[in-house]
Amino acid sequence: MILERFKVPEKDQVLVSEAALRRTVTLIFERLGLTAEDAADAADALTMTDLRGVETHGVSNMLRAYVRDYRAGKLDPRPGWRIVRESPGTAVVDAERRLGIVVGPKAMRLAVDKARAVGVGVVTVYNSGHFGAIGHFAMQAAQHDMIGVCFTGSSVNVVPTFASKPMIGTNPIAIAAPARREAPMLFDAATSAIAGNKIRLAMRVGSPLLPGWVSDKDGTPITEEKPVFDRDDFYQLPLGGTREQGSHKGYGLALMAEVLSTVLAGALPTMLASGSGSKNHFAAYNIAAFTDVEQFKDTMDQMLERLRTATPAPGQERVLYPGLSEFEETQKRRAKGIPLHKEVVAWFAECTRELRIPALLG
Amino acid sequence: MILERFKVPEKDQVLVSEAALRRTVTLIFERLGLTAEDAADAADALTMTDLRGVETHGVSNMLRAYVRDYRAGKLDPRPGWRIVRESPGTAVVDAERRLGIVVGPKAMRLAVDKARAVGVGVVTVYNSGHFGAIGHFAMQAAQHDMIGVCFTGSSVNVVPTFASKPMIGTNPIAIAAPARREAPMLFDAATSAIAGNKIRLAMRVGSPLLPGWVSDKDGTPITEEKPVFDRDDFYQLPLGGTREQGSHKGYGLALMAEVLSTVLAGALPTMLASGSGSKNHFAAYNIAAFTDVEQFKDTMDQMLERLRTATPAPGQERVLYPGLSEFEETQKRRAKGIPLHKEVVAWFAECTRELRIPALLG
Repeated sequence: MILERFKVPEKDQVLVSEAALRRTVTLIFERLGLTAEDAADAADALTMTDLRGVETHGVSNMLRAYVRDYRAGKLDPRPGWRIVRESPGTAVVDAERRLGIVVGPKAMRLAVDKARAVGVGVVTVYNSGHFGAIGHFAMQAAQHDMIGVCFTGSSVNVVPTFASKPMIGTNPIAIAAPARREAPMLFDAATSAIAGNKIRLAMRVGSPLLPGWVSDKDGTPITEEKPVFDRDDFYQLPLGGTREQGSHKGYGLALMAEVLSTVLAGALPTMLASGSGSKNHFAAYNIAAFTDVEQFKDTMDQMLERLRTATPAPGQERVLYPGLSEFEETQKRRAKGIPLHKEVVAWFAECTRELRIPALLG
Repeated sequence: MILERFKVPEKDQVLVSEAALRRTVTLIFERLGLTAEDAADAADALTMTDLRGVETHGVSNMLRAYVRDYRAGKLDPRPGWRIVRESPGTAVVDAERRLGIVVGPKAMRLAVDKARAVGVGVVTVYNSGHFGAIGHFAMQAAQHDMIGVCFTGSSVNVVPTFASKPMIGTNPIAIAAPARREAPMLFDAATSAIAGNKIRLAMRVGSPLLPGWVSDKDGTPITEEKPVFDRDDFYQLPLGGTREQGSHKGYGLALMAEVLSTVLAGALPTMLASGSGSKNHFAAYNIAAFTDVEQFKDTMDQMLERLRTATPAPGQERVLYPGLSEFEETQKRRAKGIPLHKEVVAWFAECTRELRIPALLG
């Protein structure tokens, strides 16, 4: 459900097929030293994210940073798989500087296995690289007739309510739940007013930031529309924007994500240890342990259909549910191709040349 | 962290001690037919909520509704305890019209037992009465060195983003986590811009509603300050208020709460079955299954202290963390008494007279 203002302008678009993107991204990761399985997991996370239209977390914004971090030795392409503590329903994993979009699929698979055994599984992870769009991992659980939930403790960018400087991350929360006829529910959102990557995207497409999204450098919320020139001119605000509009709720939800990922992994939040990377929480709830799976899907279908077909407010086109537009976008992009910004395509050309792999096909 | 505008005006306050309130509320519930244990649990939930200063969910707003519902036969004072499905880490309970603040402590105890066995425990409940402030149940887990998390699917009051009428509840989310020197973290907030009970409270204390809190009767967000005369003049909005301010996140979080409580209990959301009562999700995470409990508390202390002592933004007094002002309020009210509105005290007088129990002591 990305705002119109954030889309790549049509004149700058180059359409690329899912298969071509997946192939090239897999090859890039393999060249960087990842195993074939890890490279395929990472390429799947990025490609699915772009297919869903979540451009803030797809190849355009993230891949070049990942490539840079592997080359700089900040990420380990072939770490082990170290489980530091485990119980029938839980595990804690030291990611040993493995990229988050590679750790995520492994961690959620473990959570799903535990949920199959005892009804619910929770895996926390620390010491990893960036996690991309965590809704992707929640969706893994949904594909196994489970509910998937993820929380992330990310780097410090957001000013707590009443504070003067950033102390918490944009700490996203995601949930995915399966339906039958309807698109699966897929919610994935930063607990900040706006995702960090959206600011980068706004700069690239030349869009202003709206009231309540960011604060001055002294922590005072900015309440008028503002063009963006420099990422360092402002700080991000929690969802709600100001106290009276509920920023204490966005702030509280960010701390909830921090406690359930970082602190529950035995790690330190970034406010106490800068450069300590992402921490994550992966939960799988085995629907069959709670209720009849077919009844669950019936109820999801009825609820989601009721929302999708609700009468919209005056001036609105229709009512969406979380995951619906991403599902529709996936179908559209599978048919027509993924629109990448021409600058991103130019980066691919340079990257594939340097790594001596076949160029990305248009 | 209640807004100043919602506090009971000093001229209307009557101070009542914790012990007196607890005793009278327990006696009321016993007279209504509850067992001594259930009455004590219910009185504890209400008294602790009032001690924390969460007046929206304490005796003032809720007790008279509970008494009315027992007398009308909408609530069952002595139902059984029917577990409809169970696994090592999970259970689903049919509350059989038991009051939510009685079900909650029982359900969280079960979740804590399961978390002790397999690391994490999740109990979903359907067919119950009102749940009060769900943070109270999350705190139960924190008292056992666990993280407590609660979600509620409540009655239909909130308009989804772009919709024209209410289809979702204010569906609150709560988390509690223990610290050592610092007050425990306790976050408990509706996923709507404003809690339903706050509107009742605003009417009682004569406060206006702020921009982005409510919509017109056609679903259009109201973006100016508005005095409240009639609860039926408007609908509630999700946290964020408008789409551009992030209302799709509040809406998504409400659906997250609905799926994890209602649908995961095998029940129908209120949008599909009106009058179907509250549905709840109680989760306990056994910290010792994930990491060292003392290290967890150290990290919580460091993080919460860092937030509490942070430099505030210009014009702000200090930075809070979720649960801090509730903890301070509890200490203050334990020392000085709980300020009830004189109308509430008058109601107590009438109620205790009718039930033939000793009057509430001042």
